[in-house]
Amino acid sequence: MERFGKIALAIHGGASSGSDYLDNNITSYEEGLERATTAGYKVLMDGRSAIEAVHVAVKVMEDNPLFNAGLGSALNENGEIQMEAAIMDGKYLQSGAVAMVNQIKNPISLAKAIMENSNHTMIAGQPAIEYAVNHGMMPVSNEYCITEQQRKKFLQSKSAISYNLPINGKKKAYGTVGAVALDRHGNTAAATSTGGPALAHAGRIGDSSMIGAGCYADNSTCAISATGQSEYLVRLVVAHDIAAIMEFGGKTLQEGCDYKIHEKHKHMLAEMGVIGVDRGGNISFSFNTECMCRASISNQQPLYVGIYK
Amino acid sequence: MERFGKIALAIHGGASSGSDYLDNNITSYEEGLERATTAGYKVLMDGRSAIEAVHVAVKVMEDNPLFNAGLGSALNENGEIQMEAAIMDGKYLQSGAVAMVNQIKNPISLAKAIMENSNHTMIAGQPAIEYAVNHGMMPVSNEYCITEQQRKKFLQSKSAISYNLPINGKKKAYGTVGAVALDRHGNTAAATSTGGPALAHAGRIGDSSMIGAGCYADNSTCAISATGQSEYLVRLVVAHDIAAIMEFGGKTLQEGCDYKIHEKHKHMLAEMGVIGVDRGGNISFSFNTECMCRASISNQQPLYVGIYK
Repeated sequence: MERFGKIALAIHGGASSGSDYLDNNITSYEEGLERATTAGYKVLMDGRSAIEAVHVAVKVMEDNPLFNAGLGSALNENGEIQMEAAIMDGKYLQSGAVAMVNQIKNPISLAKAIMENSNHTMIAGQPAIEYAVNHGMMPVSNEYCITEQQRKKFLQSKSAISYNLPINGKKKAYGTVGAVALDRHGNTAAATSTGGPALAHAGRIGDSSMIGAGCYADNSTCAISATGQSEYLVRLVVAHDIAAIMEFGGKTLQEGCDYKIHEKHKHMLAEMGVIGVDRGGNISFSFNTECMCRASISNQQPLYVGIYK
Repeated sequence: MERFGKIALAIHGGASSGSDYLDNNITSYEEGLERATTAGYKVLMDGRSAIEAVHVAVKVMEDNPLFNAGLGSALNENGEIQMEAAIMDGKYLQSGAVAMVNQIKNPISLAKAIMENSNHTMIAGQPAIEYAVNHGMMPVSNEYCITEQQRKKFLQSKSAISYNLPINGKKKAYGTVGAVALDRHGNTAAATSTGGPALAHAGRIGDSSMIGAGCYADNSTCAISATGQSEYLVRLVVAHDIAAIMEFGGKTLQEGCDYKIHEKHKHMLAEMGVIGVDRGGNISFSFNTECMCRASISNQQPLYVGIYK
């Protein structure tokens, strides 16, 4: 057992162009990021797996009403909760994902249960909720995940639409949470969870539950969790492409992330951000929005928490 | 307008280890493959787009009860139809996908409508069916897609399970259909559609609706449609990885396909197959199962139809 191997964890709480709400609550956001990082890192310090660490870190953010995942999820066009999540283990390239669920306190735990217990990599909708119940997860009420702030945002957006006004001015927020980790056995993992964009079409599935797009992990390259304009992340297969750029293009993790986010698709003007970790314990952040809520820690680098560029 | 550019089309009707049913109906399978190829190729000959060509070719296979997509879809654990499909345009990297639908005669047409008209890249379940209706597609009855052959297979499998017998002996069939094309403007496209595996968990979503896994197209590299053990195709991000191997690894289309299918993940024993086309009009087939129903045609090569190795 490599007891003294490198360990590292990074998380994100979504990319955005900033907002008054963020600015007015910046200390709470920073505290939330620190709490999730500390919780995930403790798992790694205890010698447990990268999968457990990303699971715990994402769970803490799902339970924090400030982030758009779990409690605090955005409401879709019908004013309903519609969450999705994915998790991937870089050792065996195993993955689990869930989409179109409500009544689930922690979608990332359900994604993990699917990875561990199902022959499938993704289950969605009502059958996913039943799967959760059959695997010992007590459903919460339909209302549980809905915060006052998200309900207000939904009503404002709906009313802006009916008066044909721009929604939230020019401000954009891509609420997603994610974590990547390296454990002392040299294994990587990634996890991503979201409540989706506000006013999303019912039944919409985005990058956060799609392996390769919003979540990917492979020990031989890196673990990535993405955030941003979801549909671009899907079309550009962002998380997997960064791994491929490292694998075949001979770039480092940071170079790979920067190339994908800032260079390769420049003409598309897609707003996106990623966090990554590689087997060497290197951590990278790359985003082309004004903010990306983020934090990291390793046994080589102290806690870092950042929001704006 | 490059009136005399290269044009090419390839299709597949799923990979498998063969079956008595396939052997007893081999001429019908060959005719079905030829019919879909001819229909898709006519679109290219008429100077229309690769997207239209793959759409038409897949639609013809969805309407053919022999293939596990559209009419003839396998039944899930509850004896229900649960189809998924994806389509991608290699020029603008646009994509559309649909999952967990029944009552839709042609899921690939719905995926195309989502690509063309929605802000989203994927819509699933009942809202996807409503989306189809709102875009002029008449729903068919719940029974429409169910063939006698698939109902028989479902009942046999259910009864094998209750007596704890192996399902279908050792025979495996990964029923999926797909098409890839290059049009005379140098644009590529890919499309994939499936009824999913027999007895799949309700709500299961597989590779066929996941961009990067079972379907991917990028003019700068290739268009790919995959078939096989779906969950491996998801975890190994097969379609996108072949494009990445070409882009960064400097391999040709055939080399890229062969490396991914036969070499890279050899230890996993994943059964899979792919079809591909690149901008040079090269067509490739690669599969590690005993059969892959397949066909191709281009303005450089005559019609080819193959089933066994």
